[in-house]
Amino acid sequence: MAHGAGGKATRRLVDGLFVPLLYDAQAGTEPDRLSDAAHVQVGRSDVAITSDSFVVTPLVFPGGSIGELAINGTVNDLAVSGARPVALVTTFVLEAGLATEILVAEVQAMARAARAAGVAIVGGDTKVVEHGKTDRLYITTTGIGHPLPGVSLSARSVRPGDKVLLSGPIGDHGITILLARGELDLEAELSSDTRSVFPLVEALIGAVAPALRWMRDPTRGGVATSLNELALDSGLSVHLFEEAIPVRDEVRGACELLGLDPLHIANEGQFLAVVAPDCAERALAALRATPGGEEAVLVGEVRDEPAAAVLVTTKYGGSRIVDMLVGDPLPRIC
Amino acid sequence: MAHGAGGKATRRLVDGLFVPLLYDAQAGTEPDRLSDAAHVQVGRSDVAITSDSFVVTPLVFPGGSIGELAINGTVNDLAVSGARPVALVTTFVLEAGLATEILVAEVQAMARAARAAGVAIVGGDTKVVEHGKTDRLYITTTGIGHPLPGVSLSARSVRPGDKVLLSGPIGDHGITILLARGELDLEAELSSDTRSVFPLVEALIGAVAPALRWMRDPTRGGVATSLNELALDSGLSVHLFEEAIPVRDEVRGACELLGLDPLHIANEGQFLAVVAPDCAERALAALRATPGGEEAVLVGEVRDEPAAAVLVTTKYGGSRIVDMLVGDPLPRIC
Repeated sequence: MAHGAGGKATRRLVDGLFVPLLYDAQAGTEPDRLSDAAHVQVGRSDVAITSDSFVVTPLVFPGGSIGELAINGTVNDLAVSGARPVALVTTFVLEAGLATEILVAEVQAMARAARAAGVAIVGGDTKVVEHGKTDRLYITTTGIGHPLPGVSLSARSVRPGDKVLLSGPIGDHGITILLARGELDLEAELSSDTRSVFPLVEALIGAVAPALRWMRDPTRGGVATSLNELALDSGLSVHLFEEAIPVRDEVRGACELLGLDPLHIANEGQFLAVVAPDCAERALAALRATPGGEEAVLVGEVRDEPAAAVLVTTKYGGSRIVDMLVGDPLPRIC
Repeated sequence: MAHGAGGKATRRLVDGLFVPLLYDAQAGTEPDRLSDAAHVQVGRSDVAITSDSFVVTPLVFPGGSIGELAINGTVNDLAVSGARPVALVTTFVLEAGLATEILVAEVQAMARAARAAGVAIVGGDTKVVEHGKTDRLYITTTGIGHPLPGVSLSARSVRPGDKVLLSGPIGDHGITILLARGELDLEAELSSDTRSVFPLVEALIGAVAPALRWMRDPTRGGVATSLNELALDSGLSVHLFEEAIPVRDEVRGACELLGLDPLHIANEGQFLAVVAPDCAERALAALRATPGGEEAVLVGEVRDEPAAAVLVTTKYGGSRIVDMLVGDPLPRIC
C-alpha cells in the first residue's frame, strides 16, 4: 500500500521502475524534472497534461466526494504546473451492480466541479468489471492546459534565500477522510478542502510571475513530502517555521491522538509556492486579496544547508528534520 | 456488465446519463458528435485528446498484453480521429501484493508499444488498493495528438454512395481473449491484432484526405456496433457485402460454435473508413501499399435507405439487419 501513498515508496517506484523502463535516456526523452504535469509541444502550442486515478474511500465525505476530487485534483495539478486548465477527459471503472444513484451523483458532482473550475469535460470511457473486482467505482481524470506566459517553474531554479508560501491551513482533507471512515471514535467539525486552486495560482502569477520558481499541491504525503521532493531535486534545504504553519485545532487534535504529523497529511485545496525573496510580500498580498486565499502565509525559506533536507524550527528555537511520508498511515485518501 | 461492453447499453449510458449531466446544452458545450477523440483548442493549436481504461483479463494473451493494449488502444483512438499521436500519460490502479514481475513486464510492454508507435509517455500516477479491490492491475491511458491538416471527419458529412473500407481481418482480438481464458475446450492458432493503425491512417490521409469522411476503430462491440453508430449519427444506412468481409477460419469457426457474429467481436488493430466513391480505389491502393495494410478491402457502401440501419447482403443475395452489440458475451475484452 505504501507504494501508492505518495511518499518515499512511491518515489522509489517512480525513480526505480517507471522512469528507467519508460524513458530511453539515450533518446533524450527522459523528463528533466518530475512534476505534477508534463508540458508537451503539440503543433505550435505548448500543452500541459496530467492524469490521476481516484480510489478514495468513502466515496462521499464532508466537503466533497470522489467525483469532485477527480476534477479538482487534476485541475490543481495543471494549475501548479503554471497552466490554465482547459479540458478534461474522464474514465470510469464501475463495479457490476453499482446503484445508478451513486453514478449519477458522482457525475453531477463532476459537472458542478468542472463548471466551478471553468473547465470542459470533453470525453471519457466506461468499463464495467465483476462485483468484487473494484470498490464500487474508480475514476481517472486527465487534464490539458495552456501554460501561462512568462512562467518557468523548476526545482532547479530555486535559490537559497527564496521564500516558501502556503495558501492556507493544512491537513483538512486527510483528517476528514480518516474521520469519515468511522473506524475511530473521533468526531470533529471538519471538511475536505477540495477546490480548484487555479484562481489563487493565477493571482500569484499575475503579481510575481518572473519571481515564481516552483509550485506544488501537497496531496498524498502532505507538505513534508512535497518539500522533500523540492529539497531532493534542488539539492538545497527547506526551513519551515512551525509557528507559521496554519493547522486547524481539529486537525492538530486528531494528529496528536493518532501520532501523525500534520505535515504528512494530504490536502486537496492548498498549494506551496517558492518565490524570490524580494517578491514574497507582493506574492502574499496577491494571494490574500483573492477569495479563498485570505489565510495564505509565509511558512519558510530555502537555505544552502543541510543539503537536500527539510527542517522545521520550533517556537523554542530547536529544529528537527522532517522526512517524506514513510509507509501509508492513510490509504486511499484520494 | 453490458453497460461496459461498448454496444447498445453503453450508448444508452452515454446518451442518457453522461451527456445530459456533463454538458449544458444552453452553454453550447455539448459535443456535436460522439467520436473516439475530442478536439480542443489549446493556445493557437487544435489538440486531439482521448482516454481509455483497460481492464482486460487475462493480463497476457497471444499477441499482446494489457500494457500493449493500453498504448495501442489510445494511439488508435487518436489516429482514427485524424490526429497524429504525440504523447501519452498513464495511470495504474494496482492491487496490494501484486508481483513486481507483472508490473515490470507490463511497463516494459508499454515502453515497447509506445516506441513502436512513435509516441512519448510523459507522465503518470499510481494508486494501490487493498487485495480484492481490483483485479491485479488496471491501466488508464490518455493520449494527445495533433490533428492532421486537411482532414475533417464526421458522420454528418457521410453521403449516400460513399464506400466503406476495412483495414484487415476482423475478430482476432476478441476470439483470442476468449480462447486465452481457457474456459472453453477450444484451441486455435490465433493472436490478438493489437497494433498502432496510425501508419495506415497516415497513408490513407496522404492519399485521399479531402474525400475521407469518417473513421472508427471497431473495438468493443465490433464492426457492427461502429457502423450502427455511423448509421444512427448520419441517418443513413450501411450495406455490407458479407463475402467481402475478411474473417480468419479460426475466428469464423469459434463464432459458429459459440453462436457469435464476427461483426460483433472486438478488434484492436483494424479500422473502418468511409470515403467518397470516386476515391475508393485510390484509398484502397494506398492502404494496401502500406506494411500491415495488405488485406484492406472494400466491404460496403452507404445508401439512403433504410434509415439508420446496417444491412449485410449475403452471397445468395439475401440481406439481414445487423444491430449493435446487445448484452455482453465477452466481458473485459480490453
